[in-house]
Amino acid sequence: MPSFFSKRDLHFHLYELLNVEQLTDYPYFKDHQRESFDMILDAAEQIADKMLRPLLTEMDRKEPQLINGTIRVHEGMKAVIRRFGDDGWINAGFSYEEGGQQLPVTVQNAAAFIFQAANYSASVYPFLTTGAANLIRTFGSEALIKRYTPLMYSGRWQGTMALTEPNAGSSLSDISTSAEPTEEEGVYSIQGQKIFISCGDHDACENVVHLLLAKIKGSPAGTKGISLFVVPKKRITDQGLIDNGITTAGVYHKMGYKGAPIAHLMFGSDNNCLGYLVGEPHKGLSYMFQMMNEARVGVGMNAAAIGTAAYYASLAYAKERPQGRPVTAKDPTQPQTLIIHHADVKRMLLFQKSVVEGSLSLLLQCGFWADLAHVSEGETKERAEILLDMLTPIAKSYPSEMCCQTTSAAVQILGGAGYTTDFPVEQYYREARIHPIHEGTTGIHGMDLLGRKLLLHGGKGLHYLTEEIQATIDEGRRSSYPDILNIAAQLQTVLERVDKVTASLLTLSPENKELFLADATLYLEFFGIVTMGWQWLKQAIQAQKSLEHSKIDGDLNFYRGKLAAADYFFEYEVVKTVSLAQRLMSHNRVTVEMQPDWF
Amino acid sequence: MPSFFSKRDLHFHLYELLNVEQLTDYPYFKDHQRESFDMILDAAEQIADKMLRPLLTEMDRKEPQLINGTIRVHEGMKAVIRRFGDDGWINAGFSYEEGGQQLPVTVQNAAAFIFQAANYSASVYPFLTTGAANLIRTFGSEALIKRYTPLMYSGRWQGTMALTEPNAGSSLSDISTSAEPTEEEGVYSIQGQKIFISCGDHDACENVVHLLLAKIKGSPAGTKGISLFVVPKKRITDQGLIDNGITTAGVYHKMGYKGAPIAHLMFGSDNNCLGYLVGEPHKGLSYMFQMMNEARVGVGMNAAAIGTAAYYASLAYAKERPQGRPVTAKDPTQPQTLIIHHADVKRMLLFQKSVVEGSLSLLLQCGFWADLAHVSEGETKERAEILLDMLTPIAKSYPSEMCCQTTSAAVQILGGAGYTTDFPVEQYYREARIHPIHEGTTGIHGMDLLGRKLLLHGGKGLHYLTEEIQATIDEGRRSSYPDILNIAAQLQTVLERVDKVTASLLTLSPENKELFLADATLYLEFFGIVTMGWQWLKQAIQAQKSLEHSKIDGDLNFYRGKLAAADYFFEYEVVKTVSLAQRLMSHNRVTVEMQPDWF
Repeated sequence: MPSFFSKRDLHFHLYELLNVEQLTDYPYFKDHQRESFDMILDAAEQIADKMLRPLLTEMDRKEPQLINGTIRVHEGMKAVIRRFGDDGWINAGFSYEEGGQQLPVTVQNAAAFIFQAANYSASVYPFLTTGAANLIRTFGSEALIKRYTPLMYSGRWQGTMALTEPNAGSSLSDISTSAEPTEEEGVYSIQGQKIFISCGDHDACENVVHLLLAKIKGSPAGTKGISLFVVPKKRITDQGLIDNGITTAGVYHKMGYKGAPIAHLMFGSDNNCLGYLVGEPHKGLSYMFQMMNEARVGVGMNAAAIGTAAYYASLAYAKERPQGRPVTAKDPTQPQTLIIHHADVKRMLLFQKSVVEGSLSLLLQCGFWADLAHVSEGETKERAEILLDMLTPIAKSYPSEMCCQTTSAAVQILGGAGYTTDFPVEQYYREARIHPIHEGTTGIHGMDLLGRKLLLHGGKGLHYLTEEIQATIDEGRRSSYPDILNIAAQLQTVLERVDKVTASLLTLSPENKELFLADATLYLEFFGIVTMGWQWLKQAIQAQKSLEHSKIDGDLNFYRGKLAAADYFFEYEVVKTVSLAQRLMSHNRVTVEMQPDWF
Repeated sequence: MPSFFSKRDLHFHLYELLNVEQLTDYPYFKDHQRESFDMILDAAEQIADKMLRPLLTEMDRKEPQLINGTIRVHEGMKAVIRRFGDDGWINAGFSYEEGGQQLPVTVQNAAAFIFQAANYSASVYPFLTTGAANLIRTFGSEALIKRYTPLMYSGRWQGTMALTEPNAGSSLSDISTSAEPTEEEGVYSIQGQKIFISCGDHDACENVVHLLLAKIKGSPAGTKGISLFVVPKKRITDQGLIDNGITTAGVYHKMGYKGAPIAHLMFGSDNNCLGYLVGEPHKGLSYMFQMMNEARVGVGMNAAAIGTAAYYASLAYAKERPQGRPVTAKDPTQPQTLIIHHADVKRMLLFQKSVVEGSLSLLLQCGFWADLAHVSEGETKERAEILLDMLTPIAKSYPSEMCCQTTSAAVQILGGAGYTTDFPVEQYYREARIHPIHEGTTGIHGMDLLGRKLLLHGGKGLHYLTEEIQATIDEGRRSSYPDILNIAAQLQTVLERVDKVTASLLTLSPENKELFLADATLYLEFFGIVTMGWQWLKQAIQAQKSLEHSKIDGDLNFYRGKLAAADYFFEYEVVKTVSLAQRLMSHNRVTVEMQPDWF
């Protein structure tokens, strides 16, 4: 079986690029060191390889089914979830007092990446629980924390995020699930329905704990009236667990990502569903959004992980498959060459490599900022928070959009074989497609970047990011290597292009708000490529340095590959910003003025 | 159920753009007129809507299965194929003497487009038979023609093209299936295996007739040693049909396009498989290639048809789905707006519309040239042949590549719903993905365009095409409408860009042949966008003319939609040629120099 990720590359990101060990200078992480991080990654690889990967295909073929009101998932999931609980993965980042390991987010995400690359669907269950538990521990009462989180950490109870409703997807302000106060303080009677709830019901855990958004009766309209509740499938009473009035109305059958059960749920049809308020009333959406960055970076990571697995699957195939001959030596009496020697195949491999490794670089960088935001203080903390905020729409969307294309390149390398279920690449292609949709569509993130993040904190996000990119360019310009100088100079030009495009768009706001935001998705794409260019310059600078000092053959190849991928990325991807900039600055009104009847 | 294509648009292409009625001036088509074409399209729509479309989802869910040595396909296919036979669709273009209707290819392709948009898999069976029968009638002996084609035309016998082998996919010269002469002239003993044979075996027809490539023992190596054979599943003897020694080793399970059975076949394992030579020995590949243009344009049409169905599915959804509010009026107490009013959704719809209608325009244009090549003489014939030859790689690849992206946009418009099997768009997304692979991968077509077609016939292909594009630009420049003038001027610039890029690449050939061809795929993409720009200028000029004279509301909307789509295409797609040109002219060597060990 071909490998599905590269630990060598993960180590490069963690130890050479980010120098993640510097986090251990902070008291919260002081018990850690490189050795403990390595052990954790090795442990993740063990589980990924032995437990998750063997289920990859099977979980795709045997979809979850709704039987007698409960969703039955693959029988292997019970052991997987319990193992995640037993080994402490669900609450690894939480404090010792909470039973956690105080592990940096950067390392947690690196481990999650390994799980996701092995079996995306299986990886969803435990980390949804982490997100839900995180909401309770951050905003919930002591009683709620005590009652719910230990069983969630152990993997016995599943956590979910219950947001979407039939009429409220991208427009969350329109949810209509209601919460009516009962006689007991903090306890509400819940009524409504939720759709697309990941792991919303299944038989691999003993209970399901929904972190649910609802409106307390009489609340103001829109987002200001939304509150957050813990709504368990079975609620705790003195007599033990009893049914809490939630009905599973259906399980979605999907194009991919089939191993995870996505449920349609009805709450309180018989007036017997209780929810427990988390924090204060009407603050539900803001609580949810404070966790959202994490989930969104997580989606980017999922996409990059699936893209990585597809990359290695197609790489293994390209190294084994003979077909055709070099264009300069077409003699049919000679044996065929391996397809990895064809420039067009190498192009498709470099495309995948540059996108997935560039994405991983940015995503781990985001994890690092999350750690700094958590443990540092003052300016460092503020800067990390704002950079994370600014880059979240890109960290979510660039990998999500691009890994649809990289998995497509993987399919293409395998040709007809890639289109069959005999190889895993077609599954990766199907699984990649969910990511531009969930946790905010690409369109929503475009609006978030251009319409919100750009101007948030008085424009500090763009300012800090530009400083970071400029610092990398400056470092590149001090290099003595022409290749580094060349791409640093290119990035300088591109950075100036960002300024021009942004300034040009801002002339439209606020008078022409519709036109200003009309191509927010393209602006996001443009910005995504620039950000990746920055990550590739960083990687190239580091690779060039390491190359000088390394004498190990495998390492030399690794660093040369990095330099080639950086070259590729600037040559084939960054160049797209020329056309995108021209497009974004033309202020053409066709999408605004198009009339529905003209289609 | 939303519509799956637009007859209005088909009529625009056939009667306003191409003026297909002019073909009836040629004796071969003299019995036809617009009324008969209309009747044929109406008949196609009837079958598509009543027979094909109802099976679309079912055929995806109930895949063909290999049971007791035979592939069982959906039970509805028997009636479908027989209907195609009974109504004369399989040989509609052939002469009256052959029982055909002497229907122009342009109109046949328009009808095929309707079938393909309704149910791609179902449409494959009859038209594969057409292609196989066409080979027999063009190159086969009278005896072969008489023996095989009538039963193929009737739909009782399936035809196939049996090319690919385990070690010979893109590199056809490496086939190893052998043919050994028997005592009877023209009859050979066949041995070998073929993979990925569409409709290679199934139970909806009484027999399967393979048009198979094999090497006669002792033939020269490479493509020069390849011959073409008729190899039926059951061969005709005086005692009736008997088994011809072909074993179905397997049926492929695929990501999409599941309704058509793709077989792995073993020929002559027991030395009892006979093949009948078609034409002369060693000319098999050239025969096959003479039919290949047709098949390749057909693949482009499949892709455009699937893209069209997905476009209309997402358009219908966008017109019904309320979500969110205008960016300038976010009041949550107001009702939500339909998503078709969001600029980002209109952008995704315009993207689909411009790609699928532009593709259809080019593909019908190719059909028209095929007709001219068939019925005209002298310079007109030569020009049509060369233009068709030149544009075939683009007509195959542009729709194939881009409809992977347009069907993705359709999924995106539906959001989470689009990822579920409750809507057909996810199926379209899966089905679109085969087209960049079969009938020559995109990489192969890039090499064909840059490495062959550009220099073929002394460069006449590029010369004629440039003349055609220039003529359209000149017409646009005589317009009194600023929008037309604007895009005509843009296309002029782009045409000059083609010259520059091509000249720049040609400086590399032949000394640097590997580098010259390394980015052939990107050159094909570049050229595809230019060609589409040309088709959109043509459509815009015509739409503007028709708009002046039309007074019907629906027509006004239709033409305004065309003008908006042309505007969109230049603004969002043609602009990509700027970056592509920069890329293609840089002569960067990264994909050539990348080493396998560096990945």
